[in-house]
Amino acid sequence: MRVCVVLTARASYARGQTVLTALQADAGVDLQVVLAGPALLERYGDLRPVLAAEGIPVTAEVPLTLDGDSRHAMAAGTGLGVVALAQTFQALRPDTVVTIADRYETLATATAASYLGIRLVHLQGGEQTGSIDDKVRNAVTALADVHCVATAKAGERVRAMGARDVHVTGCPSIDLCRNLPPVPRDLPGTGAHVDPRQPFILVVLHPVVGEDDTAPGAVWEAVLGAGLPVLWFWPNVDPGSQGIAKALRTRRSARVRFVKNLPPRQFLALLQAAECLVGNSSVGIREASSLGTLALNLGTRQQGRQRGRNAVDVTMEDLTREMADWESIAPQRDAIYGDGHAGPRIAAIAAGRPVLAEVHG
Amino acid sequence: MRVCVVLTARASYARGQTVLTALQADAGVDLQVVLAGPALLERYGDLRPVLAAEGIPVTAEVPLTLDGDSRHAMAAGTGLGVVALAQTFQALRPDTVVTIADRYETLATATAASYLGIRLVHLQGGEQTGSIDDKVRNAVTALADVHCVATAKAGERVRAMGARDVHVTGCPSIDLCRNLPPVPRDLPGTGAHVDPRQPFILVVLHPVVGEDDTAPGAVWEAVLGAGLPVLWFWPNVDPGSQGIAKALRTRRSARVRFVKNLPPRQFLALLQAAECLVGNSSVGIREASSLGTLALNLGTRQQGRQRGRNAVDVTMEDLTREMADWESIAPQRDAIYGDGHAGPRIAAIAAGRPVLAEVHG
Amino acid sequence: MRVCVVLTARASYARGQTVLTALQADAGVDLQVVLAGPALLERYGDLRPVLAAEGIPVTAEVPLTLDGDSRHAMAAGTGLGVVALAQTFQALRPDTVVTIADRYETLATATAASYLGIRLVHLQGGEQTGSIDDKVRNAVTALADVHCVATAKAGERVRAMGARDVHVTGCPSIDLCRNLPPVPRDLPGTGAHVDPRQPFILVVLHPVVGEDDTAPGAVWEAVLGAGLPVLWFWPNVDPGSQGIAKALRTRRSARVRFVKNLPPRQFLALLQAAECLVGNSSVGIREASSLGTLALNLGTRQQGRQRGRNAVDVTMEDLTREMADWESIAPQRDAIYGDGHAGPRIAAIAAGRPVLAEVHG
Amino acid sequence: MRVCVVLTARASYARGQTVLTALQADAGVDLQVVLAGPALLERYGDLRPVLAAEGIPVTAEVPLTLDGDSRHAMAAGTGLGVVALAQTFQALRPDTVVTIADRYETLATATAASYLGIRLVHLQGGEQTGSIDDKVRNAVTALADVHCVATAKAGERVRAMGARDVHVTGCPSIDLCRNLPPVPRDLPGTGAHVDPRQPFILVVLHPVVGEDDTAPGAVWEAVLGAGLPVLWFWPNVDPGSQGIAKALRTRRSARVRFVKNLPPRQFLALLQAAECLVGNSSVGIREASSLGTLALNLGTRQQGRQRGRNAVDVTMEDLTREMADWESIAPQRDAIYGDGHAGPRIAAIAAGRPVLAEVHG
Repeated sequence: MRVCVVLTARASYARGQTVLTALQADAGVDLQVVLAGPALLERYGDLRPVLAAEGIPVTAEVPLTLDGDSRHAMAAGTGLGVVALAQTFQALRPDTVVTIADRYETLATATAASYLGIRLVHLQGGEQTGSIDDKVRNAVTALADVHCVATAKAGERVRAMGARDVHVTGCPSIDLCRNLPPVPRDLPGTGAHVDPRQPFILVVLHPVVGEDDTAPGAVWEAVLGAGLPVLWFWPNVDPGSQGIAKALRTRRSARVRFVKNLPPRQFLALLQAAECLVGNSSVGIREASSLGTLALNLGTRQQGRQRGRNAVDVTMEDLTREMADWESIAPQRDAIYGDGHAGPRIAAIAAGRPVLAEVHG
Repeated sequence: MRVCVVLTARASYARGQTVLTALQADAGVDLQVVLAGPALLERYGDLRPVLAAEGIPVTAEVPLTLDGDSRHAMAAGTGLGVVALAQTFQALRPDTVVTIADRYETLATATAASYLGIRLVHLQGGEQTGSIDDKVRNAVTALADVHCVATAKAGERVRAMGARDVHVTGCPSIDLCRNLPPVPRDLPGTGAHVDPRQPFILVVLHPVVGEDDTAPGAVWEAVLGAGLPVLWFWPNVDPGSQGIAKALRTRRSARVRFVKNLPPRQFLALLQAAECLVGNSSVGIREASSLGTLALNLGTRQQGRQRGRNAVDVTMEDLTREMADWESIAPQRDAIYGDGHAGPRIAAIAAGRPVLAEVHG
Repeated sequence: MRVCVVLTARASYARGQTVLTALQADAGVDLQVVLAGPALLERYGDLRPVLAAEGIPVTAEVPLTLDGDSRHAMAAGTGLGVVALAQTFQALRPDTVVTIADRYETLATATAASYLGIRLVHLQGGEQTGSIDDKVRNAVTALADVHCVATAKAGERVRAMGARDVHVTGCPSIDLCRNLPPVPRDLPGTGAHVDPRQPFILVVLHPVVGEDDTAPGAVWEAVLGAGLPVLWFWPNVDPGSQGIAKALRTRRSARVRFVKNLPPRQFLALLQAAECLVGNSSVGIREASSLGTLALNLGTRQQGRQRGRNAVDVTMEDLTREMADWESIAPQRDAIYGDGHAGPRIAAIAAGRPVLAEVHG
Repeated sequence: MRVCVVLTARASYARGQTVLTALQADAGVDLQVVLAGPALLERYGDLRPVLAAEGIPVTAEVPLTLDGDSRHAMAAGTGLGVVALAQTFQALRPDTVVTIADRYETLATATAASYLGIRLVHLQGGEQTGSIDDKVRNAVTALADVHCVATAKAGERVRAMGARDVHVTGCPSIDLCRNLPPVPRDLPGTGAHVDPRQPFILVVLHPVVGEDDTAPGAVWEAVLGAGLPVLWFWPNVDPGSQGIAKALRTRRSARVRFVKNLPPRQFLALLQAAECLVGNSSVGIREASSLGTLALNLGTRQQGRQRGRNAVDVTMEDLTREMADWESIAPQRDAIYGDGHAGPRIAAIAAGRPVLAEVHG
């Protein structure tokens, strides 16, 4: 059986890695990996060297990201992606296509696969985050045939939308939280030297179209108020990302290091080691929940997303105050997003094999 | 307020006509009409002369239908449509885009509008028909901001999918069933002369990808068995339509007339006058329900669609039998799809005005 | 060496067949065949069964023909084709792409290949025909790296445009004129039975955008005036073709048979057997020149194309007159388009091998 | 008469500015300005603020530049551009489209306009530069109806390609070299402060796909050898530009200022004031020729381009040597690219008016 996994970004790889490994190990599966959009772009974390290091060959490359942070660019790139992905699927003739999460390009994958009549497996449907991602995620759910969701509540939502073939598998990103490597001594990137074996704050801040509450300058000021070293990760390629990059490029501090990308498990080791995570990334809700790391969540990007006891929603004012006194909060592990075995479970579903047990979180 | 209605086919016009009329009459609305795909093609019912006759100017034309009945063509045309419609919306800068029903091109409209951040009003979400149209319809629902649905049950389904701004307006096609004109003496088309003032059977048969139950040859044989004149309407431009066209082109009978297209209200007058409707068109479920015309429905195309007492699902065997004895069935009016005032109601919603009353069917 | 030949239509296959055969026989060549646009459409002569019969596998299919005879459809289909062909070439990684002649889709092939930096071989550059084909042909010449032209004069023109790697190979269509099979007794198609072993007239009439001189109705009247049986071939998929098809569909005569498509060498046997050819096809200028068949050429479509002694330009009035007295003209063989060995010559050039001799017509 | 000028980049604006001004002043012309690709991108010089400052409204925006410096991105963006520009031209219905020079996007403009049957005026055909630009420029010439070329020699080449409507107008960029403003005291940009009223060297270095001779690091070393302050302009958005940007971002010197973009006439004032220009930009060949500024030209980018006595081709070794002793060369004005009145001349041609005199350089 030919199973084609389409990866569009750093994040979708983190959430697909254990699925890929399990599919590659399955003798009955002919694994095809298609990289599309930001997964091919150096400044957002080119996945090609990462996959090469893992021994996973890339079957096809589909550039579709338009330059320029406009909504028009996002729409045109998606249309282009439908054309190019349909051509690619027609050539590769997969039996099953796997798409992950809710980036705008995933709708191109879902449209091409479903219109071609190819069985479509969607990972991480049924969640809620409060931006256009909700629309995209639900549209992909509508087009998909099989749904591997992360939480029981997500499963309920997907079923309410009329889906029938729904599996609560947990999120594969949680699989990576087991047996993490030691924190690396030296980190790539630019700016100050930060030793992650000493206390530090981790920042992952993504742009949100039309939202001012997560202005990078204000976050910068608030985070430095804690007096700790800071590891700041570059944002992904959503509309607005160039604005964040520009704002950061003009700032320098002897306590801040900028990092563009790390292998997922190295990043998770950092997340586990961090005093707290600041920003609006889903890792605060998801992986940090499994690792027990405090996540101070800003703005609307994770709005509505189901969260565990480790995660606290804060305003910019809250953040400034919390930074001065974050030891007072004691977050706990609260692994609502899976038991760490999602990858093999999803791979079996994608390959059409029976699955023994599901998560009942 | 600029309201842009995108029409893609004969059917979407029938379901949009009273909305268009009401929007055109609204002094606060700058109406834009975009014709896309089959709405520009002569052999599927070019809407340009129809709109010209109604005095409704066309603002933009977007060709996107690929020749060839393949799924690949359908996917590529949709991608092309996203690009071209995004370019068009960017130029026209509508405040609201209105899209109708569930043809595959509607997903191009919905993707372009929602990605550009334009308020999207979807008509006829929440229904069920059992083919890829279900996926497309639900994906459009996921992308839309405002939902004008035809029945109370459809409204429940749309709300279950997470939609908030849902209005049970009824279907505008039912609006046209009021005060119908007399049946025309002479009909356009080719083949035998059929006088619709005498008893006749009406056939509207659309192709269904991968379905053999609605083979045009078998329907032809069954329908001729009734011994009545037959008015046979050409199918729309779904994948498979060229197959139907080809099958019909080789057949001739002294009792069958082929008609390509009629103005909606003339068609409805015929539907009202017909002894019965045979095929798999939604007009059997929808308009015929309001008119009280018996509809013998074949295959899966209307599967799951909520139906009134006028509609009967039949197999090909059933059809052959019913044709010999169709007088025995006494269908009734059962107007579950609206009260005939959907158009003005939807126009008000699209224009952002308060709506006084909704249908509670 | 991977050599990728892109075929877009019946005509380009006729002009590529001996090239394909020679490439397939070359052990050093990995032949890739891409079918694009009308080559995939049944009503314009689907090439898939033809290639299957020849034992030539199809490597990829690229639908790109938009339905509707508009210039806008032609432009949009070409843009779509650039996207899909670039994706295809990226997947197939050919060392050389071969494109043939001057249909509008060839510019998509040439743009995709040249922008990707793939060596592009163009067949039949440097000719002149007097419509938009001239622009397309010259634009493809500008983008190509290697030029295999049919006549010495065409070679001069291509060199004047700045091209360096120019080979006067002759036209591969002429290769097929050698050792033709006997005329078939029965022909496919519709309409009257015509026995091609008796005298008959052959009509091949293509639409010309904006030209009324080749109105199919008038040609029909003129040709019937000769009193001979007529074999009328359906036009290809240029803008306007649906107009011709429509005009023909309403006409019937006991002496006219309509044929959609024939294998090239069967067609050539008919061309050789015909009393004369009427219309505006290039076969009148090209293959008929080698076969010595009289060609009565209408309108501007072949304007400026270099012609031999077999071809006569006629107005509609001339045609009517000539039809009554066509025995008076005695055309001769005048093989300015090649010596019948173009295919192997071009295959060697495409494969990067030395070529011993060129035509010096 | 509706005249639509498509601008794709900083450079095409510099070469179109006096044409735009003259068209805007023509009461018989309805001027439409379409911005496409890099003309909409901040990091390559967004033209919107520039045009707003000039009082020229933008009629439509067409994003088409794909992120990522790959040839595949270039091809896909061009296909996308054909679709979006065809849609735009269909909406704007210009009588004439004007496209400038030879960037890869110009082929999208030319394809869309010519396929739609719109009269296409091409500026700056017939030149030679030695990269893929040559192919693109000649393909655009093949598709265009009217040709306004910069030099007599370019006119000869365009006529040799079969063009008939050819005008030697001079290059509009030269128009801007008359009555230049004083050099600005302070320049935008980053890095060292450089006072352009004192002697300085100007660098404009564009990436050339597959060329190592213009490696930015080596140019950097050579230019600093002269001991003068340096103004270094960022490259445009060709494939490879991100490589240059990356190389420059790691270098800092107390004598180098980086500038992204300036209004054309301010840039020309700097060019006039500079001791010499280093790099591979066409301004060294073209504008510097009119201004009498020494241009040390590197690599193949301007290969074959007709040059005056001010321009010297150098290798990297030559450059290092010349930098130590550049006073020894005495370049002269040599205005082969026009007399400074090209803009009004071209505007008249585009508007279909008679043109009194042409340049005979």
